[in-house]
Amino acid sequence: MLTTEDPLLLRNQDARGVLTLTLNRPQAFNSLSEAMLAALQTELDAIARDDSVRVVVLAAAGKAFCAGHDLKEMRADPSEAYYRRLFAQCAKVMMAIQKLPVPVVAKVQGIATAAGCQLVAMCDLAVAASSARFAVSGVNLGLFCSTPAVALSRNLGRKAAYEMLVTGEFISADEARAKGLVNRVAAPEALDEAVEALVASIVAKPRVAVAMGKQLFYRQLESGIEAAYVDAGQTMACNMMDDSALEGVQAFIDKRAPSWK
Amino acid sequence: MLTTEDPLLLRNQDARGVLTLTLNRPQAFNSLSEAMLAALQTELDAIARDDSVRVVVLAAAGKAFCAGHDLKEMRADPSEAYYRRLFAQCAKVMMAIQKLPVPVVAKVQGIATAAGCQLVAMCDLAVAASSARFAVSGVNLGLFCSTPAVALSRNLGRKAAYEMLVTGEFISADEARAKGLVNRVAAPEALDEAVEALVASIVAKPRVAVAMGKQLFYRQLESGIEAAYVDAGQTMACNMMDDSALEGVQAFIDKRAPSWK
Amino acid sequence: MLTTEDPLLLRNQDARGVLTLTLNRPQAFNSLSEAMLAALQTELDAIARDDSVRVVVLAAAGKAFCAGHDLKEMRADPSEAYYRRLFAQCAKVMMAIQKLPVPVVAKVQGIATAAGCQLVAMCDLAVAASSARFAVSGVNLGLFCSTPAVALSRNLGRKAAYEMLVTGEFISADEARAKGLVNRVAAPEALDEAVEALVASIVAKPRVAVAMGKQLFYRQLESGIEAAYVDAGQTMACNMMDDSALEGVQAFIDKRAPSWK
Repeated sequence: MLTTEDPLLLRNQDARGVLTLTLNRPQAFNSLSEAMLAALQTELDAIARDDSVRVVVLAAAGKAFCAGHDLKEMRADPSEAYYRRLFAQCAKVMMAIQKLPVPVVAKVQGIATAAGCQLVAMCDLAVAASSARFAVSGVNLGLFCSTPAVALSRNLGRKAAYEMLVTGEFISADEARAKGLVNRVAAPEALDEAVEALVASIVAKPRVAVAMGKQLFYRQLESGIEAAYVDAGQTMACNMMDDSALEGVQAFIDKRAPSWK
Repeated sequence: MLTTEDPLLLRNQDARGVLTLTLNRPQAFNSLSEAMLAALQTELDAIARDDSVRVVVLAAAGKAFCAGHDLKEMRADPSEAYYRRLFAQCAKVMMAIQKLPVPVVAKVQGIATAAGCQLVAMCDLAVAASSARFAVSGVNLGLFCSTPAVALSRNLGRKAAYEMLVTGEFISADEARAKGLVNRVAAPEALDEAVEALVASIVAKPRVAVAMGKQLFYRQLESGIEAAYVDAGQTMACNMMDDSALEGVQAFIDKRAPSWK
Repeated sequence: MLTTEDPLLLRNQDARGVLTLTLNRPQAFNSLSEAMLAALQTELDAIARDDSVRVVVLAAAGKAFCAGHDLKEMRADPSEAYYRRLFAQCAKVMMAIQKLPVPVVAKVQGIATAAGCQLVAMCDLAVAASSARFAVSGVNLGLFCSTPAVALSRNLGRKAAYEMLVTGEFISADEARAKGLVNRVAAPEALDEAVEALVASIVAKPRVAVAMGKQLFYRQLESGIEAAYVDAGQTMACNMMDDSALEGVQAFIDKRAPSWK
């Protein structure tokens, strides 16, 4: 497990295994420079191997959550080969969030645009301040947000997703909740508390059930329903044989709290 | 066609072909014991062969709609092979609902949890009392609701489904409607009437159109859009050649009510 | 590029490249006769080859938007072969909307039923008058709206789509918006203005970004997420190498408006 000193990304883990990663490039609206993407990849890879982590909160410093790619860096030396590598690097980070065994909660305190909006969409859960706003605004510069579209269209209905992508317009936190991009909205001063409610709920569950469940959840979404049931049935049988589930179910029968290590 | 005397499951069919199946194990919150699953499978298999049935209402006796698997039975003699058989048996019942030629309407008067919530998600339509509540709560016992996830994630948006699965928290009937798990919500005293409105609408249609349509609906959801259109076009051509459609369309042209047998 | 004189379909293109196609068979509720389908196909094929078009508005004359197939014509000489050809012709028109390089906005001023509702669902965006209403009502005549189901179930949640299909009941414009069938609802007298807001937003973007984005959007919806990211990353790299994106991003860095041809 690494403890990063990289100021681009702050890392803080509490005694419960709640790991907060904070995008820390506020002067650049936390844009996803290659260095930021590399730092995220390094942290996500480390978390994937670290059994002490139970849940990740992806937060951001400053006024913006994340404004997407670093456009200055992107524009410096254009070539199609470079852009292919860059978007592949970014997609790998995004998929690493989904592949983590632990849930990732986006804590969105400000604007999330383009790949920053994609980051919110790729997190398993998202809580937003009521003042946060969301856009996939690349089209305003002539660059349709194609990779964000992958994540966005798997969160929102088809027409709502396409509208955001083709207009580049902002939606409010409340609209984002109604459309399926975020789970919960809180007043800015209550954002910590709203994230803590989700986090506390997750750390109260056995890690193995949460890990098996998250992996099954995304896997079965890509199957037909019959194949999905076969996969889910096997996963659940395997989960049920785990000590924590046997104890949890027994405790329920005995009308007592489960005694989990 | 069987008429079950099994008190686990009450069966009542009216003159219109409205068949009400009532989960009748209220003291155990209508949990899905192996005997209950077997009784449901037997009834669903019989309904699939019975042309007199036009629509099924899946109801429940007592305070709960269905609390999922029977945990005492499940915990008695744990083995992975047993759990695989059990979850496969349950998935077969769930898929039998979707495969029936007639629509199935869940009538949810109380809590629906874990596989009980899955049952609601698998029905074609669902009407809930405003006092009903829904959760996929297995994770609270260390058993992530993997098989319910298959059904839930095909009703709700991705983030809303995952939130329910990982937190195990209840949502209200109104939230269930907003998220896509139920179609309509009624005051508890108006639940019968709300179900009747849907049922009356369905029995007013020709059986063959409803049957062809239901099967096509689920089949095409699993195809790409081009293949879906080929399938749907063939289904609709076949439907149109049926006497009831030819008469229905002619009656519309003649500005009269259709005369269906 | 054709300028149609066909009174079935009015064509009007402004200086910005906003092409309005108006279904012009108000006395027959703009029903999709074979001639109307052929006229639509001809226009859509021409638009696909015409770089001067930037966005299409699909509008309708009279009280109804579109009442679906022409039932008199459909009933005149029934044969399964004829119906297969007819529904294939109709599906080809519907897919031509999705395949166009430019966005298509449905402007729905009145009822949209059966294949008329499908038309709304297949448009990339839809704006409705608050007085508009939507139904897939074929089932009322014994003809389940199977081909409309393909489009509807890719706009709405599963239970909401199936409810409309099996009941044949109308939903209001506000319900259509909440369920995902339309993007925006306006008072009837403000419908022009609401459509213009979307249209103006689209024509302000470079055509190439909009075209690449629309095609990628629908393509990636039919892939698993990993394959979708590969496709989207390549599309975005290609888009970024286009002069308009290079200029758009540079202009953003320079804090000036982009200078696009």
